[in-house]
Amino acid sequence: MALKPVNVGLLGLGTVGGGTINVLRRNAEEIARRAGRGIRVSKAVARDHHKLRSFSMEGIALIEDPFAIVNDPEIEIVCELIGGIDPAREIVLTAIRNGKHVVTANKALIALHGNEIFEAARRKGVIVAFEAAVAGGIPIIKAVREGLAGNRIQTVAGIINGTCNYILSEMREQGSDFRSALSSAQRLGYAEADAAIDVEGVDAAHKLTILASIAFGIPLQFDKVYREGITQISPVDIHYAEELGYRIKSLGIARNAPGGIELRVHPTLIPERHLIASVEGIMNAVLVIGDAIGPTLYYGAGAGAEPTASAVVADLVDVVRAMTADPENRVPHLAFQPHAISDISVKSMDDVETAYYLRLYAVDRPGVLANITAILGQQDISIEAIIQKEPDHGARHVPVIFLTQRIRERNMVEAISKIEALDAVDGKVFRIRVETLA
Amino acid sequence: MALKPVNVGLLGLGTVGGGTINVLRRNAEEIARRAGRGIRVSKAVARDHHKLRSFSMEGIALIEDPFAIVNDPEIEIVCELIGGIDPAREIVLTAIRNGKHVVTANKALIALHGNEIFEAARRKGVIVAFEAAVAGGIPIIKAVREGLAGNRIQTVAGIINGTCNYILSEMREQGSDFRSALSSAQRLGYAEADAAIDVEGVDAAHKLTILASIAFGIPLQFDKVYREGITQISPVDIHYAEELGYRIKSLGIARNAPGGIELRVHPTLIPERHLIASVEGIMNAVLVIGDAIGPTLYYGAGAGAEPTASAVVADLVDVVRAMTADPENRVPHLAFQPHAISDISVKSMDDVETAYYLRLYAVDRPGVLANITAILGQQDISIEAIIQKEPDHGARHVPVIFLTQRIRERNMVEAISKIEALDAVDGKVFRIRVETLA
Repeated sequence: MALKPVNVGLLGLGTVGGGTINVLRRNAEEIARRAGRGIRVSKAVARDHHKLRSFSMEGIALIEDPFAIVNDPEIEIVCELIGGIDPAREIVLTAIRNGKHVVTANKALIALHGNEIFEAARRKGVIVAFEAAVAGGIPIIKAVREGLAGNRIQTVAGIINGTCNYILSEMREQGSDFRSALSSAQRLGYAEADAAIDVEGVDAAHKLTILASIAFGIPLQFDKVYREGITQISPVDIHYAEELGYRIKSLGIARNAPGGIELRVHPTLIPERHLIASVEGIMNAVLVIGDAIGPTLYYGAGAGAEPTASAVVADLVDVVRAMTADPENRVPHLAFQPHAISDISVKSMDDVETAYYLRLYAVDRPGVLANITAILGQQDISIEAIIQKEPDHGARHVPVIFLTQRIRERNMVEAISKIEALDAVDGKVFRIRVETLA
Repeated sequence: MALKPVNVGLLGLGTVGGGTINVLRRNAEEIARRAGRGIRVSKAVARDHHKLRSFSMEGIALIEDPFAIVNDPEIEIVCELIGGIDPAREIVLTAIRNGKHVVTANKALIALHGNEIFEAARRKGVIVAFEAAVAGGIPIIKAVREGLAGNRIQTVAGIINGTCNYILSEMREQGSDFRSALSSAQRLGYAEADAAIDVEGVDAAHKLTILASIAFGIPLQFDKVYREGITQISPVDIHYAEELGYRIKSLGIARNAPGGIELRVHPTLIPERHLIASVEGIMNAVLVIGDAIGPTLYYGAGAGAEPTASAVVADLVDVVRAMTADPENRVPHLAFQPHAISDISVKSMDDVETAYYLRLYAVDRPGVLANITAILGQQDISIEAIIQKEPDHGARHVPVIFLTQRIRERNMVEAISKIEALDAVDGKVFRIRVETLA
């Protein structure tokens, strides 16, 4: 049963729009295997028709009027990636009125007009999905809304603005002041020319509004978020905070505290040993504390073309799964449709490539190390580092530690058996695999 | 429309079963507000009928024969928490045959018999949910299966056995050897008397089998996982690894590499700067690298009564939502049912309590510090730490930094205005809030 692909109308061909087109195209097969049918952008609207684009528009009709898309009977899902309130709000409401599902990355729209939009969607029986509106690609909406549904959530605290986090990381690592760290962020494309929305905490407040609502079951109320930017933070504060064992991060904090809900975005000292203190640069992370699960953390890229597209496409897959399958078959047990499970072979360990840590005991005399490194060389194994220790009070053998570069397990096994055969080497060579996880 | 509660039959009243009953009971209102109807355990099966339990059995009929529950027409969802293969496999298959949805925490069962179980479920149109089978409360199944559905997933690498991670953390922090770290784990209840399944990597291999399958769309194939335990790791290796800038962690690694899938569980050196290197004790974390999102990490408790129950209950909510609402209303937009949104008040910032970092410039003469601390004391503000710096080449004022304990913002604002009014204090007091995020 080859269902016909779902037609998506895409509004906005900027960074995220382009990323979405690229991801849908590149991973078309993978996505169809998961969703149960193809997802294709058939029509798109762009502000600037003549811009050079980093993606192919093949098979996509370029339209001028956004309302032509939301009124188009062929379009089943409207993907709103233009941002801002006007005309996004009217476009989304019209799409809903026309019975179309909506996927949006628009945090301002959801934070400010979500109550109205969701009420309209509920009446019309359509889905408005907005995973991309908070923390980019990190599936934090899904985690809180579904994955932690058994918890009374106590605290949500997140690094949810990559620009601020980049600036504060840069200030700490380079000792630079706010102005020059901001310039560096702008140079690298991590901040807009007008960075106020980021550095004054408005963007984080939009996201926090949404997180608090789904965590605590309260209406969206952006106007009640307390907000303080990072513009006043100086390098001396970062330095003193470090002396005291803290890092300064711009956090969005929502807490279900005695006496009411706390909603606040401000620079915050957090203990340097806390996992979230190690989140550097443009990365985002959200800590959620629930009464059953305790602390749990979600980390990933909070912005950028493809990370944000990752969330947009996940929402598209979610909507398509809901449109296509019975509820109990909505998500295939093993993520991919049963007929689409592929039998890629599993490698034998012999063929796996990793770097290695080796520890062995060898007689401490000239030439022994040369013999060992010669054996490694014969197996194409490059050495990254060697530690040779002093002998333990009169022991004949000294520990020697090697860190090697990546090589097939087969070669390493061969090398180890030859090294163990050396007279100057005592006992077994102990090896642990090394992974950079990059 | 008050729908009647869903009847769950619970098999197994051990740690996770008890946790599930406690969470369902304590958070009953919260859960019903999310799921759209109540979820109650109406019948349960336990091996030992006379055991003292840490939870109330009120309203739950205790049954002896597990098959009496899976054959009971009143039971709509079977929650299998007995573990092991036999009789769990037969129980689950019978429940499916009887048209019941199943929620299970049984990683061995899914890893070894999932292909058969899911095929039976598909034919029968029932859901088999197993979030609790991998990484305890962390919603990693949902993240990979739904949240990252737009990605071609390249790598999954996780600390997915808390016992091993506790032992390795203990060895590093205390300098103890494997044996005594294991004893400590057993004393604290983090390891069974027979710890082989954990320390030999079998448990992690079960979980990795499941993760690999949902990440890459391949069948469950536990027998192809390469497996190496942590029993041979010695304190010297941990020490040498540290010298080289690495930590040793037991990782489950699944990688879609050229030439085939890699499936392996083994001790691994990872760079100490990597976020996952900082995951200590019994905590779990899973790194997932996708082609669109890049690296993303999920962290939380991987075992224990309530963290695991958190995943079990999330699955119950998922199933109930699918049973109860139309697909497009399955998950309410704001997580809670529209009629169940509550209007808890949002606190004024004045009433929020945090600790504070204060930086001010004061004349370096006797009595000034006493004046400042007196003002703090009048506002009930306790001081945690003070840093007083040497004056900058001849400057009249020296920087003084205070770290305070938690206090209402109102008191701090009052204190700051009084401190700023002191003659000996120059300019504004700069303050940043401090959170421990515990």
